[in-house]
Amino acid sequence: MDMTKSLEELGKKAKEVSRVLGSLSVTEKNQGLQCAAKALLSHQEAILRANEKDMAAAREAGMSQGLLDRLSLTESRIQGMADGLLEVAGLEDPIGEVLSMNKRPNGLLIGKKRVPIGVVGIIYEARPNVTSDAFGLCFKSGNAVILKGGSDAIHSNLAIVTALREGLEEAGCPKDAVQLVASTDREATRELMRMNQYVDVLIPRGSAGLIRATVENSTIPVIETGTGNCHIYVDETAKFPMALEIIVNAKTQRVGVCNACESLVIHRRVAKEFLPLLKEVFLEKQVEVRADEEARAIVPEWKAAEEEDWGREYLDSILSVKIVGGIKEAIAHINRYNTGHSEAIVTSDYENAQKFLDEVDAAAVYVNASTRFTDGGEFGFGAEIGISTQKLHARGPMGLKELTTTKYIIYGNGQVR
Amino acid sequence: MDMTKSLEELGKKAKEVSRVLGSLSVTEKNQGLQCAAKALLSHQEAILRANEKDMAAAREAGMSQGLLDRLSLTESRIQGMADGLLEVAGLEDPIGEVLSMNKRPNGLLIGKKRVPIGVVGIIYEARPNVTSDAFGLCFKSGNAVILKGGSDAIHSNLAIVTALREGLEEAGCPKDAVQLVASTDREATRELMRMNQYVDVLIPRGSAGLIRATVENSTIPVIETGTGNCHIYVDETAKFPMALEIIVNAKTQRVGVCNACESLVIHRRVAKEFLPLLKEVFLEKQVEVRADEEARAIVPEWKAAEEEDWGREYLDSILSVKIVGGIKEAIAHINRYNTGHSEAIVTSDYENAQKFLDEVDAAAVYVNASTRFTDGGEFGFGAEIGISTQKLHARGPMGLKELTTTKYIIYGNGQVR
Repeated sequence: MDMTKSLEELGKKAKEVSRVLGSLSVTEKNQGLQCAAKALLSHQEAILRANEKDMAAAREAGMSQGLLDRLSLTESRIQGMADGLLEVAGLEDPIGEVLSMNKRPNGLLIGKKRVPIGVVGIIYEARPNVTSDAFGLCFKSGNAVILKGGSDAIHSNLAIVTALREGLEEAGCPKDAVQLVASTDREATRELMRMNQYVDVLIPRGSAGLIRATVENSTIPVIETGTGNCHIYVDETAKFPMALEIIVNAKTQRVGVCNACESLVIHRRVAKEFLPLLKEVFLEKQVEVRADEEARAIVPEWKAAEEEDWGREYLDSILSVKIVGGIKEAIAHINRYNTGHSEAIVTSDYENAQKFLDEVDAAAVYVNASTRFTDGGEFGFGAEIGISTQKLHARGPMGLKELTTTKYIIYGNGQVR
Repeated sequence: MDMTKSLEELGKKAKEVSRVLGSLSVTEKNQGLQCAAKALLSHQEAILRANEKDMAAAREAGMSQGLLDRLSLTESRIQGMADGLLEVAGLEDPIGEVLSMNKRPNGLLIGKKRVPIGVVGIIYEARPNVTSDAFGLCFKSGNAVILKGGSDAIHSNLAIVTALREGLEEAGCPKDAVQLVASTDREATRELMRMNQYVDVLIPRGSAGLIRATVENSTIPVIETGTGNCHIYVDETAKFPMALEIIVNAKTQRVGVCNACESLVIHRRVAKEFLPLLKEVFLEKQVEVRADEEARAIVPEWKAAEEEDWGREYLDSILSVKIVGGIKEAIAHINRYNTGHSEAIVTSDYENAQKFLDEVDAAAVYVNASTRFTDGGEFGFGAEIGISTQKLHARGPMGLKELTTTKYIIYGNGQVR
């Protein structure tokens, strides 16, 4: 990696190379991914050394244990990154599919063909494995990628990208398919966010703050990912054991993820019977509850929820509880406070199930299942670049297809208007 | 229309009403469109009077004849707007279609369903008919629309929206499905561009300047429309009569539109023979040519092109001419200067045709046909809200389907991870 390259140069290179990537055959792309995976392993020592530098600096700066763990690389994590690339090589190539082709009355044959987006920019935080994962998905879908990782992981990211580029070169693929913004200052991020001439889409991955900053400052189209204030609504007809199992799974199976449940909404008629059961389970699982007044009248041990609790993504062992008078109030509450990620109802009532699916405004709406399933792997996409919580372009888990666009290809024989 | 409503109130209303619109049946929506069409006709006098106010002010301000013509409403134009709404009523309802539904190994049934986007903001300039057209498409696709027209057309727009809302009310549909920003100051436009809480997508329609300003200032996702620096490449194997007919059509059939041809690229080997033919036709059609040195050596009467000519969308009887050494140079030139709208090759060579379709980066790429076909009507969509020149969400003509998004609906029976 030439660290002195300006962002402008990176952008130009990426645009140039994106013209070539769109025409690579699936065999060539898979070869590139395989060689890149191999290069990660052969560069293992250099990557670990670079990561140790980042870790030392982070420890010095007093980084929390959780973040240190995210930042840290090990032999097995590098193996995981390499395996990830091989998995992506095994996925179907989305490029070139003709989604429709119709003959118009004037004889024009109009087809809609799937093509790469072009240049994808990824802005992310501490986890260096994103570097390799994001490259894999962008490369397989024919896109050039410009990566802007967090400054905490700069040495690790540089070492990883150096390996990936060497792998690509060995495979005879253009190494500029993946480039890293080597500068760690914020001005570089801002500049990247305004390179409309070169970058077709920006995908921020990380904290709510990072995503908000990208949306606020980017003039390039952004795909918002991640923030998930997910609810589970327990209807009056819910089967209690199923409801308990789903809530416990969605809240506790992994607390720091965007598809974890952050808020329980429950029908007044079953609250008195259900909430004490929940109290027991949550005591055992050490989940803190912040409840409205009515729920606290049933379980006085729970803390009182404040207005701001309804909108919060805790990403922690905390859950808010709200009692409602029925499906209508439940849907209104959820549509008011949710972030458009994943919402679930537990019910045995057909009409309520359909109403919930119809009227809740979110990327994924569930009946009788845990919100934790909103994930590219679980949806059968093989891998994901993120989970879109916006409505444009892609909604929900984004796999290879979501990294593509279409173009109309039109076959004529002299038609004029 | 209550003109004192703040933008915040408009946004809130639109969001509220969007929840209802998504659940309207196609019969209810068509009834709304029919009543709105009727109301336009019954309000004809009021609309014409309001338009006269706008016209008088515009004449006073010295508006050009072309813009005055765009601003002006007549009985037949109002009839045209009403007919447009009836046409939209005749189109298929895109909402509710389930695009796919698959059973996962764990028994979860995951479906992808087409739903409205929610709240669409349209920012546009002088033509008051956009007010009615945009409402029709947004309403049929289940979206609430907030319209921000140009200050020149404010009285006309208010009168039109008043009629549309009365029509909706008569049909028993929520009248806040269409709202107009009554304020004409620029601050209101800026505020609208940052109402992420209420507006899901912004579509600017109008000049390149308006579109750029929206992209620069909006924090809401924007769909860029319109700008078209469209090329026609005459390959060495082109049939001359076909090439001439296509160029003349694409350049002269209507000069002020985004899918008109702005630049001719021609293979060196046929330039000497072809350009003199073109010179004759363009003399007759009064098309001004700005050519590179090599072309001017063949037709000395043509003006010299400057660097900036290659990137210009003239929207006028002007065409630039560039000679190239072959398909590769032609594609590189086009990919460098085009705006991603519509590009055409005239050729009899199979490989060049395929190469052009594959490698030219634009929303619509043609072989042996005029670029003028890039249009929702011509593509068979029935109507269009604009032509997207960006790659995200929609590319090319946008009809009803492009005003929708999807959500995942998931049927479970107790699944947990």
